[in-house]
Amino acid sequence: MREVVLDTMRLVERQAEQTSSRILFLVLDGLGDLPRYGDALTPLAAAKKPNLDLLARDGCCGRFDPVGPGITPGSGPGHLGLFGYDPTEYEIGRGVLSDVGIDFSLQPGDVAARFNFCTLDSDGYISDRRAGRIETEQNRRLVARLREIPAPPGVEIFVETEAEHRGALIVRGEKLGHRLADTDPQNTGVRPLPVKALDAGSKTTAKIVSAFVKAAREVLKDEPKANGILLRGFDSLPKIPPLSERFQLRPVCVATYPMYRGLARLVGMEMPPAPPSLADFPAVVRANREGRDFFFVHVKYADKAGEDGDFNRKREVIEEVDRLIPELLADGFEVVVVTADHSTPVAHKAHSWHPVPALVWAPGRVFRDSVATFSETTCIGGALGRMPLRFLMAEALAAAGKLAKFGA
Amino acid sequence: MREVVLDTMRLVERQAEQTSSRILFLVLDGLGDLPRYGDALTPLAAAKKPNLDLLARDGCCGRFDPVGPGITPGSGPGHLGLFGYDPTEYEIGRGVLSDVGIDFSLQPGDVAARFNFCTLDSDGYISDRRAGRIETEQNRRLVARLREIPAPPGVEIFVETEAEHRGALIVRGEKLGHRLADTDPQNTGVRPLPVKALDAGSKTTAKIVSAFVKAAREVLKDEPKANGILLRGFDSLPKIPPLSERFQLRPVCVATYPMYRGLARLVGMEMPPAPPSLADFPAVVRANREGRDFFFVHVKYADKAGEDGDFNRKREVIEEVDRLIPELLADGFEVVVVTADHSTPVAHKAHSWHPVPALVWAPGRVFRDSVATFSETTCIGGALGRMPLRFLMAEALAAAGKLAKFGA
Repeated sequence: MREVVLDTMRLVERQAEQTSSRILFLVLDGLGDLPRYGDALTPLAAAKKPNLDLLARDGCCGRFDPVGPGITPGSGPGHLGLFGYDPTEYEIGRGVLSDVGIDFSLQPGDVAARFNFCTLDSDGYISDRRAGRIETEQNRRLVARLREIPAPPGVEIFVETEAEHRGALIVRGEKLGHRLADTDPQNTGVRPLPVKALDAGSKTTAKIVSAFVKAAREVLKDEPKANGILLRGFDSLPKIPPLSERFQLRPVCVATYPMYRGLARLVGMEMPPAPPSLADFPAVVRANREGRDFFFVHVKYADKAGEDGDFNRKREVIEEVDRLIPELLADGFEVVVVTADHSTPVAHKAHSWHPVPALVWAPGRVFRDSVATFSETTCIGGALGRMPLRFLMAEALAAAGKLAKFGA
Repeated sequence: MREVVLDTMRLVERQAEQTSSRILFLVLDGLGDLPRYGDALTPLAAAKKPNLDLLARDGCCGRFDPVGPGITPGSGPGHLGLFGYDPTEYEIGRGVLSDVGIDFSLQPGDVAARFNFCTLDSDGYISDRRAGRIETEQNRRLVARLREIPAPPGVEIFVETEAEHRGALIVRGEKLGHRLADTDPQNTGVRPLPVKALDAGSKTTAKIVSAFVKAAREVLKDEPKANGILLRGFDSLPKIPPLSERFQLRPVCVATYPMYRGLARLVGMEMPPAPPSLADFPAVVRANREGRDFFFVHVKYADKAGEDGDFNRKREVIEEVDRLIPELLADGFEVVVVTADHSTPVAHKAHSWHPVPALVWAPGRVFRDSVATFSETTCIGGALGRMPLRFLMAEALAAAGKLAKFGA
C-alpha cells in the first residue's frame, strides 16, 4: 500500500537553520471559493482589499492542495498541511480534537475521551443518552463536583465542560495506554458498557477510568437528569514533532478559536491569550514579537461565512482583514504569507477539495510574477503553480533565508 | 532521508463512496499534439468543435502527464493512468496485451504467450521465423486444427489467431506458473529452443506447453510453410484491483478496438458489444446507462491519424466526435471528462511524452476557469494545472460528489 518516496519536506527539515528573520503566516480559514455565475467573481475577487492586492502584486502567487487533488480536508488535515506536515502521516482523533477544541492543554501521553452526561433509571439502564440536553451552566456545576473525585497516586484526572451535556475527561500519568472501548452503548434501555482495555498496555488506564465512573455515579446519584456519564473516543495525542525541532522555528499562535489554538499547540506553538476581537490581533502579534520568528495568525470568520453560504459576509470579512494589514505589518516581517487551510465555497456551504489561493511576499526574495490582485483566478497564473500545501512552508522558509544550500 | 509517503490515490480509495451521480469519461486516443509551425495550431486547436469548447468554457481545464515528465507511455500505462492507477505499479506484459488485443477474455491465473507460425526445414532448423507471412485466413485454418490438440485433464488450452503469422496461446488450469523462457531463438538456421521453466512453480506449465508444441509439430507436419510454432512473452494477468473495489464505481466500457476493451476489462469494466461505428456510440452509452456510474468511451481514430502524420484527418476526427457530443450527453451526466491516454503528435507519427489536455465539466462543482476553448495551449492556463494523469480520476470523483471528507 505505502511506498518509499523522498518527501522534500524531510530535506527542508535537514536544511533548516535558525535566523532572526520573521515570517507572518496569515490564515483566513475557508478562504478558497469558486467563481459565481454571472460576474465569475469569488468573495476574494470581489473584495476591496488594496493591501492584500499590493502584497500579491509585489509577491508571488499560487494554489495549494491541502491534502491532495480531490480530497476535502477537515480542519486537522488542513492545518497540518499549512504547518508543513503531510496530513496523511498524522491522524488526529475525535477525542483529541474535542479536547483541543475546549482549549485544554493536552500533553503527550494524556489519555483523552469525550463524555456525555446521561440519565440512568433506578435499575441502572440508560433512559436518556443526553440527560435531557442539560444547560451548559448545569454542566459546569456538575463538572466542578466531578473534579473533587480523588485520583490514584501519580495520576491526574481532568474533567472539562464542553457544552450542554458534553464534556471531556483527561487522565494523565506514566505509561497509560489509550486503547479503551467506549462505555456509551449508543442505545437506551441498556446499561452503560463496562470500561474495557483493548490492549495490555491500557489495563491500568481502564482501572483508573472504571473507578472514576463508579465514583461519578455516586457523586451524581441525586441528580434528577444527569446521574451518569457515558465515555467514548479514547485517544492520545499523536506524536507530532514540533516546528522548533523540524524547522528550527520559534512559533507563536494568534487565534481566537479553541480548535485552531489547539492545532497550533499540537505542533508546539507558544500560545498567548486569545485576542478579544479581530481589531486586537495586531496588538497581540506586536506584544509577542520578541524572540519569535513564526507568527501563525488565524481568522475564523471567512469559513463561517462560507458555511452559511453568505457571499457578502465572506467578502466583508476579507475586507476587514485587509484593513488590519498595515497595522499587522507595521513592525516589519521579512516574509508574509496569506492563504487558507481549505476552501469553503459559499455555493457548497461546506469544506471542499479545491486548492486554496496563496501569496508569498518577500521583497527581492520571491519571483515577482505578473499576478497583480489576489484571487483564486489570478493565482492560477502565479509563479508558485499548484502544489501540495505542505510545500508552502518550504517556500516561506526559503524566502526567509532559513534553508541552507543542499549539497556542494 | 527517504520515508514512507501515502499516495493521494490511496486516500482517494479510502474516501470513495458509491453515489448515483454519473461520470462520462470520453477518451480520444492520442489526442495530445504540438503546435505546428506557421499558425501554431494543433489539430485540436484547429478543429471546429463548438461542443467541446462549450464544455471547456463552463468547466475546468488542465494538462496531465500519463506517467510522468518525459515518459512516453504505451497504451497500457496510458490507460492505467486514465483509470486512476499508478502505471509504474502494474506492468502489463506483451503476451497479455496481445491477448487483450484480440479480445480474448483472459482470466487471473491464465498463462498467455504470443506465437509465430514458422518454417522448419527437414532437419528441424528454422528457415523462416514468420512462415512467409502467411495470410490471416491461412492462420485461421491452422489455428482450427491446433485447437483439436487435446489438453491434459484439468487444463484448457486456447489457440487464437492474431493476424498473418501471429497468434496467441493461452493455458488455463490450477496453479500454473507463467515464468517460461521464449522458444523463439530470434534467429534462423537454428532449432527452436526447448520449453523451459524459469522457476519451480512453472514446471507443470512447461510440461503442458512442451507437449503442445510437439503435438503442433505433428499436426502441421505436411504444411508447406507453417509447419512449426515459436513462442514468446509468457505472462499472466497482473493482479489489478478493479475500479469497483478501489473507487466503488460501476463502470462500463464503450469502445470498438479490442486492445482498449481488454484494458478496460483488466480494471473490471462491464463490456457491452462494440458499437459498429462512431455514430453508434451514443446509443450504446444510452443502452448501458442503468445501474452504471462510470462510462469509459474510447475513440481510437485520433491516434491513428497522428501515427499517420495526418494533421487534417486528426482534426476531422475531433470534429466528428464533437458532433456526437449533444447526443452523448442527452441523458445527463453530473461530470464529463474529455482527455487522452497519451499524445501522438502528427510531427512525431508516434506516441510522445507530452502532457495531454483535459477538461472536467461539472456545473457548480469545479472551478470555472478562464479557459474558453479546448486546446493544448489554452489548457496551460487552466485551473487544474499540470499533474500526473491518475489524479484526473480524483478530480472527477470529487466533482461527482463521490469522495467523503478526510479527517475531523
